[in-house]
Amino acid sequence: MRHLDSIKSPADLKGLSEADLKILAIEIRQFLLESLSRTGGHLSSNLGIVELTIALHKIFDSPEDKIIFDVGHQGYVHKLLTGRMDQFPTLRQLDGMSGFLKRSESEHDAFEAGHSSTSLSAALGFAKARSLKGTKEHVIAVIGDGALTGGMAFEALNHIGHDREKVIIILNDNEMSISENVGGLSKYLDRIRTSNNYYKLKGETEFILSKVPGVGGAMARGLKRLKGSIKYFFVPGMLFEDLGITYIGPVDGHDLPALIHSLDRAKEANDGPILIHVLTRKGKGFMPAELDPDKYHGVGKFSLSKGVTELPAAKTLSQTFGDKLTALAGEDERIIALTAAMCDGTGLEGFRARYPKRFFDVGIAEQHAVTLSASLACAGMKPVFAVYSTFLQRAYDQVLHDVCIQNANVTLAIDRAGLVGQDGETHHGMFDLSFLQPLPNMTIYSPKDAPELEATLSHIMRREAGPVAIRYPRGVAVTLLPFEGAPDAPQLERCEGDDFALIAVGNVFANGLEAYERLSALGFRGRLINPRILKPLPVDALTEAIGDTTAIFTLEDNVLTGGFGERITLALDPQRCNVVNFAVPDHFVEHGTIQQLHERLGLSGKRVAQRIQQSLVTRNMKSHSASNSRAPETAANGVDYE
Amino acid sequence: MRHLDSIKSPADLKGLSEADLKILAIEIRQFLLESLSRTGGHLSSNLGIVELTIALHKIFDSPEDKIIFDVGHQGYVHKLLTGRMDQFPTLRQLDGMSGFLKRSESEHDAFEAGHSSTSLSAALGFAKARSLKGTKEHVIAVIGDGALTGGMAFEALNHIGHDREKVIIILNDNEMSISENVGGLSKYLDRIRTSNNYYKLKGETEFILSKVPGVGGAMARGLKRLKGSIKYFFVPGMLFEDLGITYIGPVDGHDLPALIHSLDRAKEANDGPILIHVLTRKGKGFMPAELDPDKYHGVGKFSLSKGVTELPAAKTLSQTFGDKLTALAGEDERIIALTAAMCDGTGLEGFRARYPKRFFDVGIAEQHAVTLSASLACAGMKPVFAVYSTFLQRAYDQVLHDVCIQNANVTLAIDRAGLVGQDGETHHGMFDLSFLQPLPNMTIYSPKDAPELEATLSHIMRREAGPVAIRYPRGVAVTLLPFEGAPDAPQLERCEGDDFALIAVGNVFANGLEAYERLSALGFRGRLINPRILKPLPVDALTEAIGDTTAIFTLEDNVLTGGFGERITLALDPQRCNVVNFAVPDHFVEHGTIQQLHERLGLSGKRVAQRIQQSLVTRNMKSHSASNSRAPETAANGVDYE
Repeated sequence: MRHLDSIKSPADLKGLSEADLKILAIEIRQFLLESLSRTGGHLSSNLGIVELTIALHKIFDSPEDKIIFDVGHQGYVHKLLTGRMDQFPTLRQLDGMSGFLKRSESEHDAFEAGHSSTSLSAALGFAKARSLKGTKEHVIAVIGDGALTGGMAFEALNHIGHDREKVIIILNDNEMSISENVGGLSKYLDRIRTSNNYYKLKGETEFILSKVPGVGGAMARGLKRLKGSIKYFFVPGMLFEDLGITYIGPVDGHDLPALIHSLDRAKEANDGPILIHVLTRKGKGFMPAELDPDKYHGVGKFSLSKGVTELPAAKTLSQTFGDKLTALAGEDERIIALTAAMCDGTGLEGFRARYPKRFFDVGIAEQHAVTLSASLACAGMKPVFAVYSTFLQRAYDQVLHDVCIQNANVTLAIDRAGLVGQDGETHHGMFDLSFLQPLPNMTIYSPKDAPELEATLSHIMRREAGPVAIRYPRGVAVTLLPFEGAPDAPQLERCEGDDFALIAVGNVFANGLEAYERLSALGFRGRLINPRILKPLPVDALTEAIGDTTAIFTLEDNVLTGGFGERITLALDPQRCNVVNFAVPDHFVEHGTIQQLHERLGLSGKRVAQRIQQSLVTRNMKSHSASNSRAPETAANGVDYE
Repeated sequence: MRHLDSIKSPADLKGLSEADLKILAIEIRQFLLESLSRTGGHLSSNLGIVELTIALHKIFDSPEDKIIFDVGHQGYVHKLLTGRMDQFPTLRQLDGMSGFLKRSESEHDAFEAGHSSTSLSAALGFAKARSLKGTKEHVIAVIGDGALTGGMAFEALNHIGHDREKVIIILNDNEMSISENVGGLSKYLDRIRTSNNYYKLKGETEFILSKVPGVGGAMARGLKRLKGSIKYFFVPGMLFEDLGITYIGPVDGHDLPALIHSLDRAKEANDGPILIHVLTRKGKGFMPAELDPDKYHGVGKFSLSKGVTELPAAKTLSQTFGDKLTALAGEDERIIALTAAMCDGTGLEGFRARYPKRFFDVGIAEQHAVTLSASLACAGMKPVFAVYSTFLQRAYDQVLHDVCIQNANVTLAIDRAGLVGQDGETHHGMFDLSFLQPLPNMTIYSPKDAPELEATLSHIMRREAGPVAIRYPRGVAVTLLPFEGAPDAPQLERCEGDDFALIAVGNVFANGLEAYERLSALGFRGRLINPRILKPLPVDALTEAIGDTTAIFTLEDNVLTGGFGERITLALDPQRCNVVNFAVPDHFVEHGTIQQLHERLGLSGKRVAQRIQQSLVTRNMKSHSASNSRAPETAANGVDYE
């Protein structure tokens, strides 16, 4: 029997010898590889953190001690050691185990995350609560070197250094976050990593100092200060010490005894916050992942013998965006592309290769990226910040202030808008329409497919008329319908009659098209409208497209409240039209495939067709009796959110 | 004639000798004191930056060279030197000169600000644009030590250090931002400031090293590294150097020749980013302000001889909040108060004095404050983060993720919600309802006056049911009507008939009351409803309060789009009710008194009464002809935004 099978909770680790723990590490890697090869998931980061997680649970006592993992997708080993091994076959699947930590999943998940750089703030909160309650538990934050570049991590470091509350910070330095790291901090950590002969030098310097003749008075004080200064030389983490945080390290993150020793030392220490600098290797123990950890950051199913086999993957909308922007940049040298540590994810690899001087990866720093874009625009450039919808939330104030108030020509290319699937509730991009539509000066486009994305992007780059957001979903670059008309005019894509009009936002236009065709097959003769531009709302053109139709339906993958559908409802004459909004209800949405989630939320083509059919039938019945009411039919009330 | 009168643009500075510039500094201080004593404005920070601003315009050539002021309220001297002296009598007044920098005001205002910590990102943008355009202008950011604690400043430092583009950063270190500074960084800067004998020590250490016998090989390398290490000793800004930024300083910020020398040195340097650490004194040259710079941060009119005379100021809602929270904290030791560098502004001085261990000022770090609150809640505490509405925008993602997804018992005490007056467009809190209402699990209260604020806060602290926002405006703690009923049930505050129903959000309930009374005097018999709880919307109770009334009006000081009024419109049956929303239109709102702005936006009691009267008359006429339409009457279309 494997050691792993006997671990039902961290308590079961305590009795194992270091030799057994080393075997356990091997078993865990094997388990992760086998399990993830079948389900997919975050591989590289979890392979890199096996020994560290074992050591943490060996030394500390969860759930009394609070172990907080930044981002949380590197919590698989933690899940394994806290009794969730049997749930791995359901990882990231609908109603299965989350790919992140969840308080509802286990008492060992102290704090949830999903976006980077929150763990230090969270750790300080637990530490302050401990102090106020007079309890004695330990609080440990595990944060990657990439996450450390996020501004809020620095805000927390600054407070922690000042406050002196004991917090143990594990800097999990794998020399990269999702892609290669960016920034002065990264270079600084590099220097620490490479200055590996500082122990040797310690001896030499002591020799030097011993040659100095006896000194007194001012000279003695000088020497004392010099020794203080020399601390910078031996203690590579002086940047942290400057902020008031004791630095230990660097420690080899795959050397279990060394890790256990360092954690134990930190546990026993009693003079404020401590940072342990642990060097790990992403993908450790699986050669394909060690060689290309980026590719194995988040994987689908793969072969243990062959690794991720390179099927000619379908082109994504991100790539459509990236390719088109690269082409446009060839015609206009003012075009600049920016990303916050998501070059590959946003399809900008080609741009980076072709125009390296006009490409900026700022690290995990969305706030900086947006304000940098605003000033580039003020200086006459045409910056395009490609960012996932969910991460744009980090830069809301900067979009509002630095971009919108200054009416700057900044384009936000909002990738992963709408539901994103298996990353779940922390990653769905289902709020962007609600938080962008209220902003003065903002223009919002939502193309329905790849050709429309290209046409809209060309249009925006020629336009130079203030802030623009163009949102598109995670997914394949399909062509749904040939592109006709203008990118900023609504398009009546289908028109067979006046039974109904369905206005479907670009992201879920495909679902709208399917619903339309199902209804058409059932004999309903309606209209299918692609609004294209969501703000400013093209009321006249939409009214024209609706024509004499009075049963209006809207479809979007944003939340209902403050979303697009409500804008339509409010804009149309309620005495003439009855508008029903299909949108995401007022709940966070779990993980599952996008199709499963659409189905569950009533937003799939099939469900939308059913809901429209029902509504039309009810309406028809009603029209024989009395007036109809809009309120009970809105998605807010009408959606069956199982 | 004063030198000051001859300065129409920075070019007029160039010919002045250092002696003349010193006289100019005296003239500027005199002008600022006289002018601000009449108009009010930001005093302390501007008195502190006189010599620095003169030196900047002496050495650099604005507008070709870009000088970017963080926050911008310390830009008065810059305004004086760039031709705006004659506009000072209109400072911060309706249609007058802004209290911040505005691109529309002057070509010398390169980038606008209002919230802290954006200048480094902005500077890098201008520098990158320079590099791409092949031009040669200098880019200078002036940032305070307080602003440096904001996370996005660190994000930018990290990028600047990595990028190597030449940016000149002036760290205007006045040992405080608005209140006393917080954090490890602040302590670090303190250490630099106090290590003023490092020049002397340099000599001593060189002597020590000269005594070391000749060394070779590994020893020589060791010595070389030791010298590198010793750099830490002589160069106090090693933290910045670690990030890749050359440090110069500290420089006395009131020593004009020293400043000019340092700026000139930075201008001529050619190896990447430079930080000049300038020590200034807030309120410099005006004793009352030097002694209490906090009090003179932003002032109203004051006496040059007596300073700000301490009139017994009317109690503010912020103080009502702070006093009540302090009282509640006496009954429940889980209550914790947090602020992001706004202890006084949010009325928490009393709490800090009474419960110092349960009070956290985290510095200018709203993101950290929100996530810290979330984890305190996860650890069983009841954190209350008091924050200005406009600054909460900085922590949107953290509210959404760390608070709402985890359904954490965090209370956001949103001060300065609605229009704030003379600080203008960067400070109005007119978006919070739009960005908070779409968030699942969020509850939102909007009390109408001081007693209701107290009752609601008590209610929230007993409740423990997930995230809560309680929003209240800048202003005096009035009692409009006696508090009756429950904090989470709408209150029918006036009921005389069914001519109309006015639902007025707490912030502007006073305006609603005035409008109601004006209409009543004109013979209209209506209803006045105080919704109290905005989310979840108490539809049934509101419907009951409306009764048979069909002419419904809503009043709020949030933007129309995504605001409260639209929620009412969407919730009520359009076949029965006609709803008109009075709200802030889709424009940024300038500076002026709150009353002036309400008047201009049609939200004052008088204007609301007029608009309701008009609507009722029109409606009455219409009812004799055909059906009425809601759309043309919403504020989106109907407001006359002069």
